[in-house]
Amino acid sequence: MALTWTKLYHLRRLGRVNAKLLPRCIATYFTDVSQIDEEVAKLLALKAKIQDAQPQKFVLKNPKGTRDYNPKQMAIREGVFKTIINCFKRHGAETIDTPVFELKETLTGKYGEDSKLIYDLKDQGGEILSLRYDLTVPFARYLAMNKISNIKRYHIAKVYRRDNPAMTRGRYREFYQCDFDIAGQYDAMIPDAECIKIVYEILSGLKLGEFVIKVNHRRILDGMFEACGVPDDKFRTICSSVDKLDKTLWEEVRCEMIKEKGLDPETADKIGDFVKLRGGSELVEQLCEDEVLKKSKAAMEGLQDMKLLLKYCQIFNIEDKVSFDLSLARGLDYYTGVIYEAVLKGAELLPTKGGEQVGVGSVAGGGRYDGLVGMFDPKGKKVPCVGVSIGIERVFSIMEAKAADNKVRTTEIQILVASAQKNLLEERMKLCYELWEGNVKAEMSYKKNPKMLNQLQHAEDSGIPYVAIIGEQELKDGIVKIRNTLTREEKHIPRGSIVDEVRSICAEL
Amino acid sequence: MALTWTKLYHLRRLGRVNAKLLPRCIATYFTDVSQIDEEVAKLLALKAKIQDAQPQKFVLKNPKGTRDYNPKQMAIREGVFKTIINCFKRHGAETIDTPVFELKETLTGKYGEDSKLIYDLKDQGGEILSLRYDLTVPFARYLAMNKISNIKRYHIAKVYRRDNPAMTRGRYREFYQCDFDIAGQYDAMIPDAECIKIVYEILSGLKLGEFVIKVNHRRILDGMFEACGVPDDKFRTICSSVDKLDKTLWEEVRCEMIKEKGLDPETADKIGDFVKLRGGSELVEQLCEDEVLKKSKAAMEGLQDMKLLLKYCQIFNIEDKVSFDLSLARGLDYYTGVIYEAVLKGAELLPTKGGEQVGVGSVAGGGRYDGLVGMFDPKGKKVPCVGVSIGIERVFSIMEAKAADNKVRTTEIQILVASAQKNLLEERMKLCYELWEGNVKAEMSYKKNPKMLNQLQHAEDSGIPYVAIIGEQELKDGIVKIRNTLTREEKHIPRGSIVDEVRSICAEL
Repeated sequence: MALTWTKLYHLRRLGRVNAKLLPRCIATYFTDVSQIDEEVAKLLALKAKIQDAQPQKFVLKNPKGTRDYNPKQMAIREGVFKTIINCFKRHGAETIDTPVFELKETLTGKYGEDSKLIYDLKDQGGEILSLRYDLTVPFARYLAMNKISNIKRYHIAKVYRRDNPAMTRGRYREFYQCDFDIAGQYDAMIPDAECIKIVYEILSGLKLGEFVIKVNHRRILDGMFEACGVPDDKFRTICSSVDKLDKTLWEEVRCEMIKEKGLDPETADKIGDFVKLRGGSELVEQLCEDEVLKKSKAAMEGLQDMKLLLKYCQIFNIEDKVSFDLSLARGLDYYTGVIYEAVLKGAELLPTKGGEQVGVGSVAGGGRYDGLVGMFDPKGKKVPCVGVSIGIERVFSIMEAKAADNKVRTTEIQILVASAQKNLLEERMKLCYELWEGNVKAEMSYKKNPKMLNQLQHAEDSGIPYVAIIGEQELKDGIVKIRNTLTREEKHIPRGSIVDEVRSICAEL
Repeated sequence: MALTWTKLYHLRRLGRVNAKLLPRCIATYFTDVSQIDEEVAKLLALKAKIQDAQPQKFVLKNPKGTRDYNPKQMAIREGVFKTIINCFKRHGAETIDTPVFELKETLTGKYGEDSKLIYDLKDQGGEILSLRYDLTVPFARYLAMNKISNIKRYHIAKVYRRDNPAMTRGRYREFYQCDFDIAGQYDAMIPDAECIKIVYEILSGLKLGEFVIKVNHRRILDGMFEACGVPDDKFRTICSSVDKLDKTLWEEVRCEMIKEKGLDPETADKIGDFVKLRGGSELVEQLCEDEVLKKSKAAMEGLQDMKLLLKYCQIFNIEDKVSFDLSLARGLDYYTGVIYEAVLKGAELLPTKGGEQVGVGSVAGGGRYDGLVGMFDPKGKKVPCVGVSIGIERVFSIMEAKAADNKVRTTEIQILVASAQKNLLEERMKLCYELWEGNVKAEMSYKKNPKMLNQLQHAEDSGIPYVAIIGEQELKDGIVKIRNTLTREEKHIPRGSIVDEVRSICAEL
């Protein structure tokens, strides 16, 4: 390729080549994909060069469906994470991290209809990449790639969905997921019950109000469809109709099943009878004796799991918040066993727009997915997994709404170093130095001669509990005056004991 | 464009066109950017078509230039972050977060030649987005958007560069940045000195070995170029030559200046005399009297700043690690004042490939950028800023290399609940429940009847300090046997005091 388009274009732009004088022959063609990559890279470099040179009309905003976190929001976020991570660590979870993007093919075929919501990266020559859609698929890829057959891990990171954002309700295009998963071949329902226990501990710890953890089982759902007479090839689509029952009335769902999905009305009505049911161990017993369900081996096996799960929940003393709910379906393709979803009862806490009430507030969900890791393993080796994901953005929204009128401290400064007189900048720096050396959180004004009032005002505004005041006299006497921002009391401390003093008075707070 | 490369290539692939029969004339060229887009889109569609037609061999890997963090690496990472965040908090920094992507135009024109390394998202309808390239530009966008004129903040997050990764040396395409910045109109050099103090505290705290913090000033550099006779329009390009001096000998850089950049050899030699200089306050004094530099107002102003900066460094007791170095240039366009870079002296610590020694180990850098926020403000209102970025990936690489042979605990479990006999699963669950309720970090095997040896082995492998053992007898007696994993000592504790006991023995560790 003696003369490429790129070069031609460049020469043309420089005015060195007239269109008519352009060399007429470019006998060049591509023989493989790498040549396309090369040419694309050249064109894009050229484009960037041109664009950098052009004046741009600039819009000052962040991308649709995303938000910045300001210091107050970050302080709230840190508090929420602390509660959650403490819980994960109490249960012995390790943590891992994976890249924000994956090879596109890693995500292909994992999300069913939702695949259209995946963010792709531009092909800039090289690999074809997509932003991660959840943390479960990267986790499965990680296990298969590293041949890990058992691990208990948490992963807190952002995921990306090109969804229609409803930001007032805590729905974003970039949002945190907060996952806990247990991988390994273990005895039935033991890790599954611990996942529910973790949801219980976290929701209680965050003090979000009353909640219920709905549980169901893919095999009970499948068995129910089978027993009711749903044709095999309609299990999935009927399941996704059932999934709408948390937001839609049965009548509408029934209508969809019959009219859109071609289900026999009689079959739909049988399903209708089941999906109204919710309860505890007594419901499991009742269904075990159900004449219709008894016909399905899948249903009976699922019910055995459910029986065990509810027993373990009782041992963990959480059965009052757990509800076996036959209408819980959950959309994702990869679930194979127990599924669960935690819902806030006090959904009125969630800010709504124009009075539009959005069903209930789902704040956690998960389930068992025994087949996903095998999809990545070259030999299809399965690693059974069960996990839960905390819907942390909803939690942030609730916490932020609660904190809207409260002052939240955004720094941890213990003492502000101030002076009333001029020309004491270097003395303030020295005192700060001494405090920092003593691991005291301290700051000072960056002005040479700040006004006393402004310094005290800053301490008050930022909730800094103490102010260290130095002047000529204090320096001469080898003391520091310490002022309590709240009570305005002052006391004199020998310069040499300032670090110990600040530590001890801050410990009392 | 009657016949494009794309079409030609396609025909060629189909075997319909022989190379020799290829049409000889393609009089085509681009006239604007949209034509480039069009052509790129065609090429990529073609690529996708070719690739789709080929049987997909699934490759189990993560994207080039990225890595997963396993639990051990995460434990190391958490330790490093803790040291750094503690330091930021000691100095009163708040924290913010911004989205992983920005509108592409937000990044345009900020990175000079490096713009080609920006990752773009695919145009899927909607806004044109790019992954952030650093945290400084999003910070400036955030300040302008929210009209914030002073803040002291840190931000720890991943950034993305389509660079050639050198992962053994801690260079990735996805990597953490760890930034501390002070924005606001303050008196000269006060925040600038605190940034250097912070670098000093962090590098000391991480115990990475000997280091030096090089400092210089954009106005001293510019003044030096001016005084040496560099033409105005060559300041930037000559500056980027000087920037290479940390990795390249002066002779080579001189050659580049003269042959590639057309600088007068005499001018180059004058620069050569300056860029050899490094020192402290005495060097500032010497340069203030320099006959050549005296001609430049910029240089004299820069030297006044440097004098003040070094004095403040002395007050902060860090001047032994600070070196005023005239060869320090730093590439980014947006710096306007003081610039700095911290370098590890023990660069042999960095793992190298095939004996290839990569100069020195830069682990932090930053400077003053008074113009960047104004580029985002509709009225061009300036917010002066100074900041520093910790090159955390290099730090991770060093820490990981150091920890390679050591055991690093990846969970914080205090006690493993075990049993020697069969059928005690529910009893183990009950004891775990009691421990969790008491905020003790506890776990148990997920098997119904695990072997005692396996349970003890797990405690040893994972560094779990204690094992709580229950059997029929212990249950009858209302006690728990506690075994010290290290010493193998066992003692009996009444069931009711188990939580207090574990807390107190763990506090002793």
